[in-house]
Amino acid sequence: MELTFLRWLRERIPTSPNIPLGIGDDCALLAQQSGKQTVVTTDMLMDGTDFILNECGPIAAGRKALAVNLSDLAAMGAKPVAAFVSIAVSKQDGGGQALAMAKGIFEGLLPLADEFDWAIAGGDTNSWNGPLVISVTAIGEVPVGRAWLRSGAQPGDAILVTGNFGRSIAGKHLTFTPRVREALHLQETKTNIHAAIDVSDGLSLDLSRVCSASSCGAQIELAKIPLSPEANWRHALSDGEDFELILAVPPHEAERLLREQPLGTQLTQIGTFTAEQGLKQQLPTGEVLPLEPRGYEH
Amino acid sequence: MELTFLRWLRERIPTSPNIPLGIGDDCALLAQQSGKQTVVTTDMLMDGTDFILNECGPIAAGRKALAVNLSDLAAMGAKPVAAFVSIAVSKQDGGGQALAMAKGIFEGLLPLADEFDWAIAGGDTNSWNGPLVISVTAIGEVPVGRAWLRSGAQPGDAILVTGNFGRSIAGKHLTFTPRVREALHLQETKTNIHAAIDVSDGLSLDLSRVCSASSCGAQIELAKIPLSPEANWRHALSDGEDFELILAVPPHEAERLLREQPLGTQLTQIGTFTAEQGLKQQLPTGEVLPLEPRGYEH
Repeated sequence: MELTFLRWLRERIPTSPNIPLGIGDDCALLAQQSGKQTVVTTDMLMDGTDFILNECGPIAAGRKALAVNLSDLAAMGAKPVAAFVSIAVSKQDGGGQALAMAKGIFEGLLPLADEFDWAIAGGDTNSWNGPLVISVTAIGEVPVGRAWLRSGAQPGDAILVTGNFGRSIAGKHLTFTPRVREALHLQETKTNIHAAIDVSDGLSLDLSRVCSASSCGAQIELAKIPLSPEANWRHALSDGEDFELILAVPPHEAERLLREQPLGTQLTQIGTFTAEQGLKQQLPTGEVLPLEPRGYEH
Repeated sequence: MELTFLRWLRERIPTSPNIPLGIGDDCALLAQQSGKQTVVTTDMLMDGTDFILNECGPIAAGRKALAVNLSDLAAMGAKPVAAFVSIAVSKQDGGGQALAMAKGIFEGLLPLADEFDWAIAGGDTNSWNGPLVISVTAIGEVPVGRAWLRSGAQPGDAILVTGNFGRSIAGKHLTFTPRVREALHLQETKTNIHAAIDVSDGLSLDLSRVCSASSCGAQIELAKIPLSPEANWRHALSDGEDFELILAVPPHEAERLLREQPLGTQLTQIGTFTAEQGLKQQLPTGEVLPLEPRGYEH
């Protein structure tokens, strides 16, 4: 199956000046440049855990597998350069079905590569008797010192978020747009971002990870959290797979961003990082209570 | 499981000057340098296809998953920098077993990282109801223009191979040493290597891939092929998973290498690249016949 599939795939992959050698050799070659750092992330998605193949089909599964990795690159403020896509498709229903499945997965993810002007540069195509597994490694680049780490948040920084939260399982987890454009705009305009993370496991859980890495706390105002349709605060705080960005932004820069809204995607301040450790929530009544971080634990 | 596992893992991973940021953020950061290229390869290994977990155990499975990727880096003449290891372990037998399985896999692969002075810089740890899957992406580097491509072989080049061939399934496929040291030695001594590939699918099949990429042919002498114990020529030509290197080397350089044997690992000339397309085999009788490339087709 692999040879037929690779012939099909190569016709669909554009060349990229950053990729001197793509699919077809033992390894791919990517350009290096002093003053830049390579940014690498990887995620493995499995049928029955990250998607239900029988319900969503291979196109949506493939798209999600690439999109979650793009979301991680965006959370570092990195520009995508290349992705490597390994799959194990089920051969229970014969070779033809396996080939169709492999093509479907790539039909789902190739548009995301085109959209962001980078390329699939390699991978590994397998068939087996188990359920579908898709493992993607995404590689990006960032100027030295400009990557947004989890560890840079400072007390007093505004907690800004892109988009809406909660009930991603109703569909958004398969169709979301990773915030690559937004991240690149903030980088290109040299916006001062102290820290960032993408919300994969839950707004409160991922916010707590920034706090831990930055040795600070955070207080959020429940009424400020932008809710997805049919989502309540509990959904928004703990559902996961929103794939929106949480940004730690110094107050003056945050004021400007909130006023100018330069991203196309709505930016909202939901709270402030604090010197005191731990998460707190301000209820609509004004009462301030501790907030237990919750979300998807792997 | 992931948090407990990551705590365990972080204590076992050395820091590396080439990896400014490793496990623990959304992405890892790797240094870039002008004059270098990044070399990337990825392989997904599945229980029942690439190893039989019940027979070999997690340590051997983890070792193999990293080793096959190191073999690809060696085949490009690249120095290993970082690896990213994603796993899906079976949770059928409870969380404790899944954690023990994850630890076993890394106990198998971490010594290979130590041995070659690089580091695990990220990954994704999952449990599910399916069989074990291990997906590794290995990243290396090479000076610009020094990567060994499949496409550089020239008629008249000697076909040199490292080690022995055939019957890898008897054990070597789990215990082989990827030829990283050998590749780095050849690079450091500026040896003129025109093309290279590692034998993952079969000596004749992988040789035919070099020929296709280089638009040339090859004639090999059966009696010259170094055989593994209990292997015959048929095994040697088509068994696969030898993970030895095939090198295309200009005649004078080849003579020197064969005389000096500088690698520790035996180098053998098994034939010559030819202007005429296709593979040929010279039998011990002197007769020359066409050779059909055979091996493992994915």
